[in-house]
Amino acid sequence: MTEPRWLSAQERECWLALMAVSMQLPSLLDSELHRQARITLFDYHVLAMLSETEDHLLPMSELAGRTNASLSRLSHVVKKLEGRGWVERSQSPVDARVTVAHLCDAGMEMLAGLAPEHVNSVRELIFDGLTDDDVEDLARIGRKLVSRLDPEHWIFR
Amino acid sequence: MTEPRWLSAQERECWLALMAVSMQLPSLLDSELHRQARITLFDYHVLAMLSETEDHLLPMSELAGRTNASLSRLSHVVKKLEGRGWVERSQSPVDARVTVAHLCDAGMEMLAGLAPEHVNSVRELIFDGLTDDDVEDLARIGRKLVSRLDPEHWIFR
Repeated sequence: MTEPRWLSAQERECWLALMAVSMQLPSLLDSELHRQARITLFDYHVLAMLSETEDHLLPMSELAGRTNASLSRLSHVVKKLEGRGWVERSQSPVDARVTVAHLCDAGMEMLAGLAPEHVNSVRELIFDGLTDDDVEDLARIGRKLVSRLDPEHWIFR
Repeated sequence: MTEPRWLSAQERECWLALMAVSMQLPSLLDSELHRQARITLFDYHVLAMLSETEDHLLPMSELAGRTNASLSRLSHVVKKLEGRGWVERSQSPVDARVTVAHLCDAGMEMLAGLAPEHVNSVRELIFDGLTDDDVEDLARIGRKLVSRLDPEHWIFR
């Protein structure tokens, strides 16, 4: 066994900050979105990733990659969102073996109604405390972190 | 209503990276720690925060602040950790109205056994992909993010 490479003081600060963000951000935004529309941050993220595509449509496997979820977790959530009339699953018109998720007009409308307040909360929690240089540095570092967490490169495709 | 301040391209990259970290880091480390010792990342974090104090002891309210948890969530988890013989709660010797959590020797031993592999996983997930400059920038940005998430300043005390 080689000696463990313990974290330096600066690495420890990074780590405590990433833990704070990981533990607090989802619960703060979950609470807000639940109050507004009885959805979770993950539900919102699924709908938002669909809304950003040209046809409001993605293969389930790519949607899972883009939302940091396993296919089974995503399937469970998409089923719930189908039940609320916001998403529909179907066979891909290009390849019948592929299931795609499609954001319905009702889902797009619901999302558009929530988005202004959501982006405002994200600004208050994250960006209002950062300078332009911080944002530039965090984007650079974020791309490196994501390249390790998302080997298929779905997120920054 | 003023026009929503939508995220810029760089802010969107930061946001997707923070979402990826928030969603993936806990589940990746939860799986590993569960396999090794049937504990969660949050359990580990509670024990680690106690281990870093001089007497292996913290008031429950401060421990909650340092672990990004509500007092009720922390109490639930500390009760579970007491059941495994790793932590004990008692009245503070300084102020009987205050409950403190104390890391027992058995808990310290368990933690010391897990720590080398845990720090190695954290390095693989986060730090091995970053340069020294990245770590310096992320620590600076992390302090700003935490100051918004931790108004009592427990985490970087």
